[in-house]
Amino acid sequence: MDITFNNDPKLNIVLPVLYLAWQDNTLTKKEFDTLNEFINKQEWITKAEKEFLKSKINLTSPPSRSEFYHWKERIDRALNEHKKPQNLTELGLLIANADRPAFTDDDIKKIAPSFAAMESELGIMSREVISGFQSQKNTLTDKHNTVESFDVKKLTSLLDGSQAAIINKVKELIATPEFAFETSTDIMVYRERVLEWSKILAEHGLGSYAYPKEHGGKDDIEGYFSIMETLSYHDLSLVIKFGVQFGLWGMSILSLGTEKHYAKYLKSVGTLELPGGFAMTETHHGSNVKGVQTTATYNHKDRTFTIHTPEKYARKEYIGNAANHGEMVTVFAKLVIDEKDYGVNAFIVPIRSKDKNVLEGVTIEDCGHKMGLNGVDNGIITFDKVVIPYENMLDRFAQVNEKGEFESPIPSDNRRFFTMLGTLVGGRIGIPRSALAAAKTGITIAIKYGNKRRQFGPEGGSEVPILNYRMHQQRLMPYLANAYAIHFGLQYLTKRFINRTENEMQEIEALAAGMKSYSSWNTRNTLQECREACGGKGYLSENRIDDLKNDTEIYTTFEGDNTVLMQLTAKNRLGEFRKQFGEMNVSSIFSYVLDQAKTSITEKNPFATRNTDEQHLKDRSFHLNAFLYREKEIVSSGARRFKKLVDDGLDAFDAANVMHPHMLQIADAYLDRVFLEQFQNQLDLVNDTGVKEVLIRLYNLFALNKIEQHKAWYLEQGYMEGVKTKAVRKLVSQLCWEIRQDAVPLVDAFNIPENCLGAIVTNKAAEA
Amino acid sequence: MDITFNNDPKLNIVLPVLYLAWQDNTLTKKEFDTLNEFINKQEWITKAEKEFLKSKINLTSPPSRSEFYHWKERIDRALNEHKKPQNLTELGLLIANADRPAFTDDDIKKIAPSFAAMESELGIMSREVISGFQSQKNTLTDKHNTVESFDVKKLTSLLDGSQAAIINKVKELIATPEFAFETSTDIMVYRERVLEWSKILAEHGLGSYAYPKEHGGKDDIEGYFSIMETLSYHDLSLVIKFGVQFGLWGMSILSLGTEKHYAKYLKSVGTLELPGGFAMTETHHGSNVKGVQTTATYNHKDRTFTIHTPEKYARKEYIGNAANHGEMVTVFAKLVIDEKDYGVNAFIVPIRSKDKNVLEGVTIEDCGHKMGLNGVDNGIITFDKVVIPYENMLDRFAQVNEKGEFESPIPSDNRRFFTMLGTLVGGRIGIPRSALAAAKTGITIAIKYGNKRRQFGPEGGSEVPILNYRMHQQRLMPYLANAYAIHFGLQYLTKRFINRTENEMQEIEALAAGMKSYSSWNTRNTLQECREACGGKGYLSENRIDDLKNDTEIYTTFEGDNTVLMQLTAKNRLGEFRKQFGEMNVSSIFSYVLDQAKTSITEKNPFATRNTDEQHLKDRSFHLNAFLYREKEIVSSGARRFKKLVDDGLDAFDAANVMHPHMLQIADAYLDRVFLEQFQNQLDLVNDTGVKEVLIRLYNLFALNKIEQHKAWYLEQGYMEGVKTKAVRKLVSQLCWEIRQDAVPLVDAFNIPENCLGAIVTNKAAEA
Repeated sequence: MDITFNNDPKLNIVLPVLYLAWQDNTLTKKEFDTLNEFINKQEWITKAEKEFLKSKINLTSPPSRSEFYHWKERIDRALNEHKKPQNLTELGLLIANADRPAFTDDDIKKIAPSFAAMESELGIMSREVISGFQSQKNTLTDKHNTVESFDVKKLTSLLDGSQAAIINKVKELIATPEFAFETSTDIMVYRERVLEWSKILAEHGLGSYAYPKEHGGKDDIEGYFSIMETLSYHDLSLVIKFGVQFGLWGMSILSLGTEKHYAKYLKSVGTLELPGGFAMTETHHGSNVKGVQTTATYNHKDRTFTIHTPEKYARKEYIGNAANHGEMVTVFAKLVIDEKDYGVNAFIVPIRSKDKNVLEGVTIEDCGHKMGLNGVDNGIITFDKVVIPYENMLDRFAQVNEKGEFESPIPSDNRRFFTMLGTLVGGRIGIPRSALAAAKTGITIAIKYGNKRRQFGPEGGSEVPILNYRMHQQRLMPYLANAYAIHFGLQYLTKRFINRTENEMQEIEALAAGMKSYSSWNTRNTLQECREACGGKGYLSENRIDDLKNDTEIYTTFEGDNTVLMQLTAKNRLGEFRKQFGEMNVSSIFSYVLDQAKTSITEKNPFATRNTDEQHLKDRSFHLNAFLYREKEIVSSGARRFKKLVDDGLDAFDAANVMHPHMLQIADAYLDRVFLEQFQNQLDLVNDTGVKEVLIRLYNLFALNKIEQHKAWYLEQGYMEGVKTKAVRKLVSQLCWEIRQDAVPLVDAFNIPENCLGAIVTNKAAEA
Repeated sequence: MDITFNNDPKLNIVLPVLYLAWQDNTLTKKEFDTLNEFINKQEWITKAEKEFLKSKINLTSPPSRSEFYHWKERIDRALNEHKKPQNLTELGLLIANADRPAFTDDDIKKIAPSFAAMESELGIMSREVISGFQSQKNTLTDKHNTVESFDVKKLTSLLDGSQAAIINKVKELIATPEFAFETSTDIMVYRERVLEWSKILAEHGLGSYAYPKEHGGKDDIEGYFSIMETLSYHDLSLVIKFGVQFGLWGMSILSLGTEKHYAKYLKSVGTLELPGGFAMTETHHGSNVKGVQTTATYNHKDRTFTIHTPEKYARKEYIGNAANHGEMVTVFAKLVIDEKDYGVNAFIVPIRSKDKNVLEGVTIEDCGHKMGLNGVDNGIITFDKVVIPYENMLDRFAQVNEKGEFESPIPSDNRRFFTMLGTLVGGRIGIPRSALAAAKTGITIAIKYGNKRRQFGPEGGSEVPILNYRMHQQRLMPYLANAYAIHFGLQYLTKRFINRTENEMQEIEALAAGMKSYSSWNTRNTLQECREACGGKGYLSENRIDDLKNDTEIYTTFEGDNTVLMQLTAKNRLGEFRKQFGEMNVSSIFSYVLDQAKTSITEKNPFATRNTDEQHLKDRSFHLNAFLYREKEIVSSGARRFKKLVDDGLDAFDAANVMHPHMLQIADAYLDRVFLEQFQNQLDLVNDTGVKEVLIRLYNLFALNKIEQHKAWYLEQGYMEGVKTKAVRKLVSQLCWEIRQDAVPLVDAFNIPENCLGAIVTNKAAEA
């Protein structure tokens, strides 16, 4: 009788190992050697049986397909009939003893060690392998799915608040057929479409919301921001065209001009009868706008101004509405009277006639194709001694009097300029809110896709929605939490701005500059992750992430380069700190040290720095203290470091240069704290239990994810020890897993019009 | 006589403070209060003098413009005539005493404390302010610039190595007028241009480099990679079209077919007479390609195969060359014989006639507009029972014999499939090298722009190149170092691949999968930073970052999603670890513990973990040990954690899910170590002193920047203490400052054709 596994049941004890060797891995030389030696050593089998087993590990003659299947059947049968074996040898034993006992307990005791050694040498993780052998159709990963634990409508109404009516009005409008996305790649076609859309918005009275009632508006700046934000679910070229026309152009008149300008221009700006732009940036002066070189020379004789571009790179660049549609622009230029420079002032300068001919002395080039926002007609304007009338100076902060003398309530050119800029801070509220809307759209697309896209699955089970994978959750859930956190923070910024007093202006400007950077960077990161999370689908333009990503790409640059804006924010924080502590003289140092010492006692004791209790890690005051500690420590160390650099003889400019990266940290820590506080405040205001609970989960994720991101700093400071930061990481992972179940309702609560979500979401048939 | 500063010199002592209050800040209520109280307290001035001073801090009547200038003049004069005063009071004293002594030493002693208190209360950093008052035309920041410390040509020749000839040939070609970039936004125009370019390359014999000599090639796979990499300085649609045609399509025939296929197809593939594609991915199966559903049913009667798409989402998607130009594609389909599934195999399937008509049974849709690579005609293919001849099965790894039976030297479907994929690993070498070239182009553009773009500057000095700012350096220099590190690493991968033995294949596949992810993610991050670093200029399509960024965006997804590939790499590492240590039995645990203990003695002792000595921080063995420690610890903790999860009863699939983020870390730590080692090896090979020194600087930046990025982990492990990680950060900053001087020559060494660098670089006139 031939030796076979059927004829010689005891040999089946090695079946699982053989199966494994041939299934998962190439049978390597090392594996062959191990098995060969193992077979040689076995004393319970004959030489012939050894040869038979060796024939099963012959590299040149692998088991046939049917034999291989047969092995698997035996393994399956054994696993179905018995409780889970502990290792492959136990499993083999079950097969060998299946019909009648082939091994006695004594036999087993004898042979077990060599089997264990062999398994170990092969690097086999027995239980994992056995688990993998079994058909798993009911894994935790598979079963996890969407649970609607709260009333989505209630959360939407919490997000929309008092602005629900205008938000819904805009949403209805952008869902109409007239607002079908433009798919032409011809930028001229696209620009005309965007102009057409803008006109429709103006017809519905949406352009003039922020203007005074007496000039056709609604005196409702909050409404203006809501419109801009809601439009941002749709086409972002439209948003920027809208922002250039009604925001930058109109608001420059309102903020820098006086009643005569309002009366003359505002109404036709609001209706889009008078398209215009905002010409501040020059080729050689972007971030450093104070350095613009365009001149506005006062002519005593006829009380006019001559606007002139003194050299090529003083031309106005990237000006929205300039390439095709604008008829006038607000030009920022150095006022020159009798050859004396009176600093940067603003002037209304006509550039095109009503029939769209470029006026004499004005040269306009097209900025051409851009990475995104191709529906906006950005242009480059050069002025060759263009004469404008006296009234065209926007004269709220400075005038030329009848004697031709310069007059201003603000003597310093510097301060006047920054006061002028300060009145334009609205742009730094509109942009981060628009950026947030784009991030919300992106995360909605990625989460809805991840919820239905299935890929891979447990052995023998069906494929699993990719949103059930931990890695996928950890890529997306923190950005979902950020979207909520930033929403509440930007609401706070908006309210602070609307209810501002003069004294608060500097703080609000710094806050807006910081939040603009924070939100636009978050959008950049969110959309990047969403694109990758949607794989190839995310790359197709029909699925929207293309436009969302490329259009918002410039949000980190325009309205102020983020890196520069963060310096502004940090400067303000450092200024506040210095006002409080001065130059670290004896008494202030004493009070500072006392303050730090208090922290040491309450937060930096060994119990606190090693506390991994979940309740503690979810404690709001733990979060707030940790955020505040980081903020205070970074700002105070910044002040000390700067002082030391200067004391050591470094030039102030050089010292500031060394400090740049530190300054970014100051701004970041400050903003994190403000967003955290606003999220906390929001939690206190919610009554509905379901909504509150899900927001608490999101809040915890936001707070702990930030701590996790900055854990190196906390560890360096000794504020936390490794055991605690590891517990934070684990909890972040756990929260992502939990929030995955809320993810779809949470993005549904953004209530984004379905036509804005791209084909992968709206195409029901694509569901797996 | 009226009280004025002229008439009453002693009052000039407060001039600096007044100037400061009106210049830099809005005079806030608090500042007013402080100054008002200060004036009231002064006993050395009369009531009238007090009133005079108070008139100078009147919020409703600020100093006139000319008065303000006058103050500044006095301050400037004092600073020019005397050594640097220590605080504003000293400065004021210099002004007050300018003509004749207004204060005696005794006076000063009396009044000094109240002045100091006032300055402190206002939060004035005296020395910084005084430094700011002075015209600084010679700051360190200003003076820093490009220094050519080495021979650029020598570095280029080091980078190009043995491939210089073919690299230069390709560079010459892409600099010819025929290769002028296509600017049309019409994707059909663009696709035809790319096809035209591809034909030119084929005419020059560049398409068939990798094919056997007897089939028109040069048997030079290394040359093929060099061509693809060099082309990547130019248009990336061309690179992908090239890769699809000559790589995926041609290499699938070479790798999966046999001699008869080579003879029939390879020559016409290499000349582009036979355009084709690679149809693996299906709508519902991308990452999990093993799950493709397309069937190839064997017909016994006439020995043909019927290729069929069984359901809508089993259609082949994203297939390059499919929408317009391809005539045949390699289709991956499940082979079915007598209703039995024999796993995934590959077949050549005609889809278009020579005159470009789509063949019967084949339906092709266009993938439409994409985020990038719009010069590539990606399409969706559906097969409706398309019959192909017997010979069209690519039969290297499996055949249907004459009896109609399936035969294969590799019995497991799984293993056979992965063996097939393994032969296609070349794609995972070409893509990271192409990604690297795009990163090199981006960093070249950003560094050259940063070197000439000036913005801001010291008070009174000219504006400074933005590359002189620390923040800007820290944004770009690490990516410059990465570009070199990845260059050397990918050269190593290429050489390993070319000289591979069968035994090494799994390791090389894992390495390629990991390096593809590492390089494409690095390119994503590099180009993002470059775009932002170039501001608005970076957003204009003419400056190339648009296309570079959007074209490479999909590199993180195609040829395998990075997140999935990193799991593959990690799985391989974990497998290697287990082979070494098995299931942590007594003896392996003992040797492992011993190994760890050795680390503890040499690297984790208090001296080492707190060592901030620069020589130590730049020590190669410190780097290598730190990288190795991270790699080993993460892989071994991964093995332990996985075992524990399974031992605790978690299903293997669930345990794998929990482990995903950890697995990513395993792959990342492994790759970091390989790149570090290769950079180190390279340093040993360089003889030229100048080149060696600059490479050492770059190497140090690469190594320390990675440690800085992972410092949280090192701190958690107690491998470094805060004092050391802070020293690392400082050294990274210092290295960025130093390498800024080498930055332009270092990117010049990439020797990228100038026409590939965009208008901001090539337009000489734009230089400031």
